Amino acid sequence: MDRQPANYFGAGPAMLPTDVLQQAARDLINFQGVGLGIGEISHRSKEAGAVIESTKAHVRELMGVPDTHEVFFLQGGGTTGFSSIAANMAAAHVARTGQAGTAAYLVTGSWSAKAEEEAARLGLATERLVDVKRARGKYGSIPATVEWIGSLSRDKHSYVYLCENETVHGVEWPEVPEELVACGVPVVADLSSDILSRQIDVGRYDLIMAGAQKNIGLAGLTMYIIRKRLLEDISSVSDEKLAAAGVPLAPIATHYPTAVANNSAYNTIPMFTLHIMDLVFQRLLERGGLPVQQKENAEKARTLYNALDKYPDFYCLPVEKDVRSLMNVVFTLKKEGLDDKFLEQAKVRGLSGLKGHRSVGGFRASLYNAVDVSSVRKLAKFVEEFAQENS
Amino acid sequence: MDRQPANYFGAGPAMLPTDVLQQAARDLINFQGVGLGIGEISHRSKEAGAVIESTKAHVRELMGVPDTHEVFFLQGGGTTGFSSIAANMAAAHVARTGQAGTAAYLVTGSWSAKAEEEAARLGLATERLVDVKRARGKYGSIPATVEWIGSLSRDKHSYVYLCENETVHGVEWPEVPEELVACGVPVVADLSSDILSRQIDVGRYDLIMAGAQKNIGLAGLTMYIIRKRLLEDISSVSDEKLAAAGVPLAPIATHYPTAVANNSAYNTIPMFTLHIMDLVFQRLLERGGLPVQQKENAEKARTLYNALDKYPDFYCLPVEKDVRSLMNVVFTLKKEGLDDKFLEQAKVRGLSGLKGHRSVGGFRASLYNAVDVSSVRKLAKFVEEFAQENS
Repeated sequence: MDRQPANYFGAGPAMLPTDVLQQAARDLINFQGVGLGIGEISHRSKEAGAVIESTKAHVRELMGVPDTHEVFFLQGGGTTGFSSIAANMAAAHVARTGQAGTAAYLVTGSWSAKAEEEAARLGLATERLVDVKRARGKYGSIPATVEWIGSLSRDKHSYVYLCENETVHGVEWPEVPEELVACGVPVVADLSSDILSRQIDVGRYDLIMAGAQKNIGLAGLTMYIIRKRLLEDISSVSDEKLAAAGVPLAPIATHYPTAVANNSAYNTIPMFTLHIMDLVFQRLLERGGLPVQQKENAEKARTLYNALDKYPDFYCLPVEKDVRSLMNVVFTLKKEGLDDKFLEQAKVRGLSGLKGHRSVGGFRASLYNAVDVSSVRKLAKFVEEFAQENS
Repeated sequence: MDRQPANYFGAGPAMLPTDVLQQAARDLINFQGVGLGIGEISHRSKEAGAVIESTKAHVRELMGVPDTHEVFFLQGGGTTGFSSIAANMAAAHVARTGQAGTAAYLVTGSWSAKAEEEAARLGLATERLVDVKRARGKYGSIPATVEWIGSLSRDKHSYVYLCENETVHGVEWPEVPEELVACGVPVVADLSSDILSRQIDVGRYDLIMAGAQKNIGLAGLTMYIIRKRLLEDISSVSDEKLAAAGVPLAPIATHYPTAVANNSAYNTIPMFTLHIMDLVFQRLLERGGLPVQQKENAEKARTLYNALDKYPDFYCLPVEKDVRSLMNVVFTLKKEGLDDKFLEQAKVRGLSGLKGHRSVGGFRASLYNAVDVSSVRKLAKFVEEFAQENS
């Protein structure tokens, strides 16, 4: 089974490496010669246990996860993550202070906004320390740390939340600010669309949440990396104490200590989806790990942004240069009436998945790990030629 | 890619038809010739929309879902279902009566027990109208409807919950009792391990929840069939009203009206897992639908139970005959010290997956849809011979 290499720039679910899918297809039917597929064996079998351990070990190696942190997997995607983060992190704050506290959100795009909305919906006190759209009328920038860091308080704030890469608006935190790590409030980050795209220092985060469907694998599983101390805090507080503090209980399937205590198999873990994650991790390790991937991704982003920047009268790039996403390049045409033509001519050249998110319009080229440098070069060439021909 | 037909009787995740997996493997790499796999296309693309519609249409046809009911899909498995049922159904009761009400559970095995525990954990009033283990010391029977139906009250009870087939204990409701349907309390049923195994009248249920990993497909998606009137009730009540009534909010990803309003794609739906469901539905329809499958399943269960019943001094069948599961045949050996020998000799004949659940021991042969009649005949033959040789 084969396919033509696609020049696909969709925002996710994203492309996966063809060789990973080919191996997965074989394992779907017959895994390690046991006569059954990886999706058909019991999640409590020794084969399944080995896949869980293998996946965890490979991602720990790949990301350099320190011993202070646990890795686990839950179903439900980022949206379920928004809810489970609110409930679990508030529980940890109750353990530390006896109170629910206030959840601080740094809202730099629609995904961090949605995360805050869900925490508030569940009845928790929330505060938007940063709200770029409210402050500046539109997303596309991140205010300097000094402007908001002073408001954070370890006593008051249960956690501070950021979405490291805003997929819809193309805004990416270049890194988690040093002052944020130092302030003592637990740092929670949604890395759904930039995980594995670059090297990070996992020890700087208290909780990482990352849906699989961009750089890790198929939709259906979400990876969490949590500081062990937080797990102990959450475990230590009784349901009665949480109720008294007005903290909603996480459904048992998304209660972090329960997931970790059961090695991500408290309930049935989707083994096939997990196995694809592991294949992706293994492939990245074989190719030289995150340093190699980071270099490639930087080249891809540079290639495309350079092409767009050459024609400032033709292309509009709404995101400030210092916070441009390396994963999702967002742009519009300054001239009206050319959008359909752009997409049609791109399609003729085999370039697809370029339409912007329905909420912002324009175009978006997602340069996830599985997108080849050669695909991006083709896109950059097209971007230049289209500008020249239509200026 | 091929495999030997397995004589596998594992309790789930269960075997899937080989031809379904072969088609799925092809579609994982290149779906309908678009050059991308089904897991890589946007869940908001027209191809994905078509898969969602196709899956829904096929299961509606297969199960004869009436216009009064909606079909939708959520991540999270049955365990997430336990939580989401408690929150959504209590919300519907608040809409009708202004109060949270009491959730009535008919506990006939460990899965219905877990479901009740989760509703109680989330802070809802619950009542075990039936609790077989408490009443009789062990699971293995279902008390006559007349013994408990009188306690149900439409004003008091938000819903009445049953697990139609208890996978661990091998107890199955032959049908939802007529009196239960007539009593007016919404009937909620977990059909995770008997869905599609026989014809049912969907109109008798208010809410069906069924994890995919037995008769439907891979772990990772759960199908819900809900009466539209209930959706309207849940939609009509405000979060404030729910808080006042002490009802926990369902996380937004498991809020049933939100899922239905967004055609199961409020958040990213695992398209590959959904597509496998659709392939299973299509295959069942092509083979003659549920009447054919029901006949086959009845023959399988009859074949195995008959073999076991022939040796009453050798095999112990703990479940009363009238509520024996057609999906999970549970038995133990009366003689001690033969368990390992039974499993080893079974293995020699290519019969696997027979070990009982860790909580009950002994043996369990699961006869899900994908298990062949010929496999069951081999198992029955072995059961007889083992009894003869070791009596």
